Amino acid sequence: MAVYTEVEAEDLQRLLALYDIGQPLSFKGIAEGVENSNFTLQTTVGHFILTLYEKRVREADLPFFLGLLHHLSQRGVRCPVPVDCRDGRQWTIVNRRPAAILTWLEGISLNRPEPAHCGAAGAALAQLHAAGSDFSSRRRNSLGVADWHPLAETSLPRADSVQQGLRTLIESSLRDFERAWPVGLPQSVIHADLFPDNVLFVGDRVSGLIDFYFACNDACAYDLAVMLNAWCFETDGAYNVTKGRSLVSAYRRMRDLEPTEIEALPVLCAGAALRFLLTRLYDWLNPDPTALVRPKDPRAFARRLQFHRCVRSTTEYGL
Amino acid sequence: MAVYTEVEAEDLQRLLALYDIGQPLSFKGIAEGVENSNFTLQTTVGHFILTLYEKRVREADLPFFLGLLHHLSQRGVRCPVPVDCRDGRQWTIVNRRPAAILTWLEGISLNRPEPAHCGAAGAALAQLHAAGSDFSSRRRNSLGVADWHPLAETSLPRADSVQQGLRTLIESSLRDFERAWPVGLPQSVIHADLFPDNVLFVGDRVSGLIDFYFACNDACAYDLAVMLNAWCFETDGAYNVTKGRSLVSAYRRMRDLEPTEIEALPVLCAGAALRFLLTRLYDWLNPDPTALVRPKDPRAFARRLQFHRCVRSTTEYGL
Repeated sequence: MAVYTEVEAEDLQRLLALYDIGQPLSFKGIAEGVENSNFTLQTTVGHFILTLYEKRVREADLPFFLGLLHHLSQRGVRCPVPVDCRDGRQWTIVNRRPAAILTWLEGISLNRPEPAHCGAAGAALAQLHAAGSDFSSRRRNSLGVADWHPLAETSLPRADSVQQGLRTLIESSLRDFERAWPVGLPQSVIHADLFPDNVLFVGDRVSGLIDFYFACNDACAYDLAVMLNAWCFETDGAYNVTKGRSLVSAYRRMRDLEPTEIEALPVLCAGAALRFLLTRLYDWLNPDPTALVRPKDPRAFARRLQFHRCVRSTTEYGL
Repeated sequence: MAVYTEVEAEDLQRLLALYDIGQPLSFKGIAEGVENSNFTLQTTVGHFILTLYEKRVREADLPFFLGLLHHLSQRGVRCPVPVDCRDGRQWTIVNRRPAAILTWLEGISLNRPEPAHCGAAGAALAQLHAAGSDFSSRRRNSLGVADWHPLAETSLPRADSVQQGLRTLIESSLRDFERAWPVGLPQSVIHADLFPDNVLFVGDRVSGLIDFYFACNDACAYDLAVMLNAWCFETDGAYNVTKGRSLVSAYRRMRDLEPTEIEALPVLCAGAALRFLLTRLYDWLNPDPTALVRPKDPRAFARRLQFHRCVRSTTEYGL
């Protein structure tokens, strides 16, 4: 979490000349997001965030991401809203990076959410799925089930150096998914990365969802599976059924799950665990010397994957 | 510029229970300062900065630093003001680091200040010296003339690996200072590090001075010499006499210089250049693998030191 590209006061002045949001009062780089550079910007008009998109976010995807934020906010989802330039563009270029100014959201992300927070976040996910269902642009999940095999290939030879048996775990999971990955589940725009650091709270109330840069069209229940992985495991590796029940039941009060979705939950959860295991394993084995963040330990998601592979009934998730 | 120590929402909640500044609305790590961890904190009451003091700032110095900020702000200097805990303490402990909450200041620091900015900053320095003159606590300059020799010793053997002739330049400068360092100049509390990144502007107006963690009792004219080094050289190494004139004349309108101070300016400027040359050289030769900042190139200050050693008349500074 760091600023990769510096933006000087003079760069900011040039940028703000393209916008109609007043004069700058405060501007500082913030430690937010993993790969973009973000800045808090207060002007005589309001409070904003400036994001410079670094290598992971392709400029070609910005119409989808920024258009989605606009669409969702119009439907009452609390998320950052891109501010248009005077000429109507939603982004511009700052120091050779695509850059957008978005509205600032109040709220603080939690490192150790309680069951009540899991419920509030689950309800926010259901609201997102409802609001996103009529968004007209589309984006495929670039880290979906079809992408896991090639991603795994690069890491498998060295996987057991991270944890004994990891190669076998990954290979057998991939084989299972080839056979049993659910198709035809209800789809919408999904967040695909709704970890606790991407949900802002004021007290126990969700004040906003952020970091939509993995958003795509995919199964709603897969997004829920991501959240069960990200919100409902304790640091000792145990699944917290109270948190899972709170999250899923709050989701279902806003958007009920179909029987096929419930039935698919264990394999979707295993898939979501594998997706984060694979990206973390890749980053662990191929550390970027220019990165300003330490790679995250992939082994927590190996444990979660093993848990999901042993689930025999969705009651184990608290359903 | 990065966050060294994470502060989780739960740590923040515990911290705020010690204060009377409302409920948290927003909290993010900011890329500010070189060695402390800083966070922007908005509450239902106002906007603050939380600083966790990392290894460079000794807890024993906090009564001086925080007391000084309180003292200066009472005399109209725009600087962060420490917020007292309910029990009257000015700092507490967060994640094993001393930590203080200070008021937030508007403004943006400039990377390429113009002569008008140099003037505004010079006037702010004079105001600081006037306001600090009756501050009762004292702190010696831990990077003053007496400290340069031992600091140089550690780097001299490898100095020429950074730049041919650097060892000789440092050694002959130190010999000159032993003979010619001025004594008996007017003293006050000095900032000792008033680089452009420590002066905030809204438009052409100084909105605040920050980062007082080198502040100490020393010669006022030495502080001015630091600023001439930090504000008045172009990236091509040339001294900009217009900026120097603007800075010094604005300072003198608030607090005139005595003849002894003017006479001492070249040697004080050389000393200030050597001080930053030595600390940057040390950091360059001994990079901290855990640091999240790249060490700054010491050679810019070697060039400035050479410039000052060739000055024959203070008119060359624009006086």
